[in-house]
Formats: sequence, C-alpha cells, structure tokens
Amino acid sequence: MMSVITFARSNALPLLRTSITARIQSTTASLSSLVRVEDKQGYAVVSMHKPPVNSLSLEMIQALSESLSELEKNKCKGFILTSACPGIFSAGLDIREMYQPTEGRLKEFWSSLQTLWLQLYGSKMASVALINVRICHAPAGGCLLAMCCDSRIMVNGKAKIGLNETKLGIVAPFWFKDTFVNTIGVRQSERALQLGSLFSPEEALKIGLVDRVLPDTEAATAVAESELKEFLQIPAMARYLSKMRIREAALKGLVENRETDLNTFVNFATTDAVQKGLGIYLQSLAKKN
Amino acid sequence: MMSVITFARSNALPLLRTSITARIQSTTASLSSLVRVEDKQGYAVVSMHKPPVNSLSLEMIQALSESLSELEKNKCKGFILTSACPGIFSAGLDIREMYQPTEGRLKEFWSSLQTLWLQLYGSKMASVALINVRICHAPAGGCLLAMCCDSRIMVNGKAKIGLNETKLGIVAPFWFKDTFVNTIGVRQSERALQLGSLFSPEEALKIGLVDRVLPDTEAATAVAESELKEFLQIPAMARYLSKMRIREAALKGLVENRETDLNTFVNFATTDAVQKGLGIYLQSLAKKN
Amino acid sequence: MMSVITFARSNALPLLRTSITARIQSTTASLSSLVRVEDKQGYAVVSMHKPPVNSLSLEMIQALSESLSELEKNKCKGFILTSACPGIFSAGLDIREMYQPTEGRLKEFWSSLQTLWLQLYGSKMASVALINVRICHAPAGGCLLAMCCDSRIMVNGKAKIGLNETKLGIVAPFWFKDTFVNTIGVRQSERALQLGSLFSPEEALKIGLVDRVLPDTEAATAVAESELKEFLQIPAMARYLSKMRIREAALKGLVENRETDLNTFVNFATTDAVQKGLGIYLQSLAKKN
Repeated sequence: MMSVITFARSNALPLLRTSITARIQSTTASLSSLVRVEDKQGYAVVSMHKPPVNSLSLEMIQALSESLSELEKNKCKGFILTSACPGIFSAGLDIREMYQPTEGRLKEFWSSLQTLWLQLYGSKMASVALINVRICHAPAGGCLLAMCCDSRIMVNGKAKIGLNETKLGIVAPFWFKDTFVNTIGVRQSERALQLGSLFSPEEALKIGLVDRVLPDTEAATAVAESELKEFLQIPAMARYLSKMRIREAALKGLVENRETDLNTFVNFATTDAVQKGLGIYLQSLAKKN
Repeated sequence: MMSVITFARSNALPLLRTSITARIQSTTASLSSLVRVEDKQGYAVVSMHKPPVNSLSLEMIQALSESLSELEKNKCKGFILTSACPGIFSAGLDIREMYQPTEGRLKEFWSSLQTLWLQLYGSKMASVALINVRICHAPAGGCLLAMCCDSRIMVNGKAKIGLNETKLGIVAPFWFKDTFVNTIGVRQSERALQLGSLFSPEEALKIGLVDRVLPDTEAATAVAESELKEFLQIPAMARYLSKMRIREAALKGLVENRETDLNTFVNFATTDAVQKGLGIYLQSLAKKN
Repeated sequence: MMSVITFARSNALPLLRTSITARIQSTTASLSSLVRVEDKQGYAVVSMHKPPVNSLSLEMIQALSESLSELEKNKCKGFILTSACPGIFSAGLDIREMYQPTEGRLKEFWSSLQTLWLQLYGSKMASVALINVRICHAPAGGCLLAMCCDSRIMVNGKAKIGLNETKLGIVAPFWFKDTFVNTIGVRQSERALQLGSLFSPEEALKIGLVDRVLPDTEAATAVAESELKEFLQIPAMARYLSKMRIREAALKGLVENRETDLNTFVNFATTDAVQKGLGIYLQSLAKKN
C-alpha cells in the first residue's frame, strides 16, 4: 500500500539525549515529492525520488531528515532506505549547492547534512540500505547514507560505491571518515580515502562496505526485507543501545564540533581554487547533457 | 597428574600496577570443587566444573578468580581455560543471580565479574581458551571468558558462540563491547551486538572470533597445547607488555568506571521490566526441565 | 637516469604544522652513499644501500631522513622506498647501536628514528614500499619503514616480514604498535606482537600487512610504479589531508610523548638484562660470520 506522507513542520528531535537540535527550518509542500514513504506492516520503505540522480540538494536533505523525524514520531520501528529513480541510488551532494552560493544557504545546506547524518547514524529505528544502482555510482554522500544504515544490500552491476572526494580535489569531513572506518576498518579507509576509490559490488562485499550483493533488484529487495525483519525481531531498546555502544563516540565527535566543522566547510568551499574547480566540473557536466 | 587446589583466602592482586583491588571477600571450601586446576609441566589446565552448564554464579566467578590468583602466586606461566562438563564450555552469567536478588549479593556478583575480567584480560600469564562445546552454546559470559584469552580453539559441532544479550532484551556492558571490538573489529561487533548473533564454529572462525576450529576435543586439545607452548616460548615480560600495549586502554576503561558500571548494572537489573522478563525466562527454563 | 644526491645540512621540517623539529644534527659526506635517490620523471626511487643488510644505524636513519627532506624541498610528489642490496630490504635497527652505547649517541639514535617515522608516516609525498626481499627477512624496523608507506608490494620468496621484537625479549614502542594496528587491525596486532610473528609473503597478504605479492623483483617493480602513479593522479593536497585524517592521531601520539618515549627507550636499553642479552646475541652473530 503506497502512501505519500505530506511532511508538516517537524519539531527538533532529541538526539543522543544531548542538545543537538535538528535545525530544520523551512518546509514546503514540494518537499514531500522528493521522498516517498511507503508503509509496510511494521516498517517503512523510504525512497529517494529526485530525478535524474537523487542528488542531495538542501531540499532533498531536509526532505530525508523530515521523513525520518516523521517516522520516529509515528513510532515506526525500522525502514529500508532506497531509491525510486531506476538504476540510481544517489549521486551524492548536489555540487550546485556549493557553486557561487549565498553564505546563508551554504550554511543551511551543510548544517542540514550534519543533522541528517546525526539522525540516520544514531537512529533508534533499524535500517537497511537497498542500494539499487545499475546505471549511476553511489559516491560520496550516497555512500555515506548507505553506511549510516544497519545493513547494506547492493544490486550487482556496473555501478560502484565509495567515498571519491579526493578525485574532485576535496577532502571528506572527519565524520564521513569516522563512518568509513567504523564500516571497513582503518587500513581500507586509509587507502580508499586517499585514492577516492569506487568499488564494484563484489569489491565492496569483500572489504565489508556492503553486506550482501544480489543479482537483481527483486532478489535484493527480498533480502533487504528479510534482513530488516531480523533486526526488528530484537527487543528495540536493547538493539538501539547496543548500536550506540559502537556509534556514540563518532556521533559525539560531530555534536561537539558542529560549528567548527561548519566553518571549515564554508571556508573551504568558498576558496577561489575550489570555486574554479567546481565551475569547470559543472561546465563539463553541462556539455555532456 | 591431577591436583585439585584448595583455594585459601587470596590477597588482592596488583593489576596494571594501578589501584585495582580484587574484591574477593568470601571463600568457602566448596569453591574448590567448581574449578579444577591440573598442573602440566610448565602450564596449567583450568577446567570449569559446575554441572550442568558451568553457569557463572557468584561462587563460580570467585572460584575462577581465585584459581587465577593462585596460579599467578605460584609463578605459573600460562594456562588453558576449558570445561570439565562434557559438551559444554559455559552458558554464561547465572540468570538466577539477577532474579529477585538482595542488593548486597547482586553488587558482589557484578563486582566479582569485573574483577575476573580485569584479571583474565590483563593476565601476565599466556592463555588459550579450549572451547569444547558440542551440546550447549557459549553465549554472553561464556564468550567473554574465551575472548579474554590470548587464543581461542573451538571444537566443531552444532554449538555456537557469541554475545547474545539483546535477544534477552539486555545490553552488553561497555567492557564486553570493548573486548568484542578488540577481537572481531568494529563493524562485525556493531552487527553482532545488535542482533545478539550466535556464530557456528565456521562462522566464528571467519570473523576472527575463534582462531582455530578442530573436528573433535582430542584434536582441539592437542592444538590448544601446542598453541600455548608457542606463547610460552616468548620471553614472558616482553610478551606481557606487548599484550598490554593493545589491551591497556580497555582495561583502564573499566578500572576508571567500575563504580558507574556497577551502579548502571544494579539499577538496570532491578527494574520491573527486567525482573518480569527474567521471571518469565526462568519459568520457561523450569518447564523444560 | 641515476643521480646520487649529496645531502647538505638540511633544515628541520615543519611536520604536521606543529612544533616537531627534525633533530638532524650531524651530516657527513659519507651519508650520501647510504641512500641512493634516483630521479624518475614525476617521482623518485629511494634505495637503501648499506651492505650487507641495510641495518638502521644512526647514520643510515639520518641519511634516510635527509633524503626525504631533500625530496620534499625539491617538491617531489612521491617515491618508491626500496633496497639496493640484492635480496634484502632492511634487517631493522642496528643492534650495535644499543650495545654498550654512550648515552649521547644512544639518544641521538632513538631521536633520529622518531624523526624518520614522523617524516615517513606523515609524509606529504605518496609512497610505495617495494619490499624486494628474498634472502633476509624484513623484521622490526624494516617492517616499520614499509608500514609507513601508502602501499606495500612484496616479492615472493622465503623471506618474511613482521615485528619480531618479543623474540629478542624487547617490546615494540607504542608508535610501532599504533602503526601496526592501523595496518592490520587490533586482533592480528595483539597476536603478532605477542608472538613476535614473522609472516611469509602470502600470510602477510592475507592479514593485510602487504597489499600485493609478486613472483619476482621485475614484476614487483612494475606494480610498485603503477601503484605509485595511481596515488599521484589524485590532487596532492586532498590526498595528503585524507591520509592525515587517518594517521594524525598516531602522529600526535608520538609528537606529544617524544621525550617520555626517548627516556623509556634509553632506560630500557641500558638495563643490565638487556645489555647482557644483546651481548650474547651479537656474539652469536659474530660466530656465524
């Protein structure tokens, strides 16, 4: 049964029982079309739907954030995070948000991403990423979203997954790195972060970046569902607190350094060198289309 | 040559050269029958013998703790930790210690477990866990004891090993988690802690929870012995200090938070919800027997 | 084109933009013969050449350190670290530096090793270790040098690699341990540090101590070159800062504890027990030759 939730202004979530406030300020009716939430009995399917490539613009990030807030408010126990754009999971952060931005919007963009990560990585809900890529890779921000889930199921194909920031001359923030290290370990992270490596499904499976690889979307969907149900069979509070045992240090790292991280990002993104690089990159994309 | 040591009141051990005191208070003659210590030339075999399942009651924990103290006092260089109950390693903490307890005994129970972990995980002696399970799993506390050793040899069979606390609605203490992460890494711990996973011998081998799997007890015993001898060939002080390089952070974590951890446990265990859950669980066990 | 650089007195490098000063004091013309630097287009090949086994004496350590300083000064982007002694990478620290030393030289020896590690592990340059061993193992200090590089390519053969300090009754310093853990993880480090394990090329590959094993030096050299070129294709600043995300905690660990580590080493090395052990060991080496 498909039901698209219209997201009302949602209150800030008490995350980690600390002073984090989800700084979700603006919501418009249009946000609701960016993320589709399907109510399955006992869990939800959250599908990104921002054609062509589910790029993470400010509005997309806020729509995801509000979907999660809404689900938690409705006592939802778990969700599958996936894409409603065929062959694509998410192409990552929307580069256009960083090119010739107003400072206000750039700050809101990054702060919203911080909030989304804190929500997703520290979620009380169980979560499985169904990475139904075939056409487009799941780089950077797309890989980050998947790593925040409790399990990752990937469809086999030519598309790859990874944190490829260095290939664009930029550096993954420390909390991307912490998430990466918690997922694939120190040495693999060291190498892959430096090289901006994108991994094929089989390679990703081998280093532990994904947990299962299935031949097609149908098979992957079935496994994602059974995987989520396995998590949902565990008493919820014990499961959540056990997750926090592992993730709380990384979450605390961002909570305590949000402002510094925000300023670092804004200063970096607005340097002449980065702006020039982004301009060239966007021009090359425009020519392709 | 079999010799059952009768444990006298033992003094607190200077552990980590810090102010840890092994709070072993009560000892009775009957403790000596719970743990059998066999003197092999150059090392010892420490066998848990509390039928039917080597559950870790207060007395069992203290008996293990005193066996280790006694061995260290006698300049023993290393030991194999195993079970004298056929087909069983240890079923973990004795749930009955937590059900309708007196506060005094509950505190002594938990404090004794802390002491045992500090002794075993920080032991100057080399140690090999010979996990001779076939009938009964080695969950929770049983798995913890094995992880504290320097090497783990498991007999193949239907029995499993892991930290399954969440399946009972409880959460492994942070020092169980630290031991787990140091053994199988962050990602495997994150998943297994949440799901309360119990691993077959082959699965445990694959994720590094055990080091060798052998087809039967005889073969496993031979490997455990040769493994221990390999550790014993290394100059003892250099070997011990190298172990401390890796384990000292985790050990320090409990030493500095013993009281907090004790209070957290006592408060948690005595909540109505947990007491009710334990009651139902114990009733179900009673019906089985 | 082969060009042997003659090393002039080099200034201390600003490392990690902190107050580290590379305490390179004495240089003599003879240092230049210990390390050969070959200029390839876009990168360098740094070859240790101190027959018979590239032992790391004070002069050898300083020559390596100065080679790196010189390369950075010349804006070199990357290098292959290898050996010009056939069949040998490096036998590790020169034991003779520790036997009946003057305190001044012993301190300079250890301080120089600290400096070399800080330079190599925190290098802005990309680096690949070409471990062209066949005859002689790459233990202790030799293994450390390799682990500091961004990638390790090893020639297959009978020679082994590892941190074997405990076998000589000594303990790897904490920063050796940190480098080890960052490379092969906690559990493998715990076991290998205790046992002083030396790994065959295939074993080293399996635990991640090396990244590739090739059948001969020619094949290994080709792979080392293509591997380095892969790192060099990445924008240099983004690559370097990504490396620092992973390594900065370990680097900071030594920067903040240099004096303590130096004193610990000097006190330990000059104890009667260690001096006696080293004497016996050196006598046994002398008899072999």
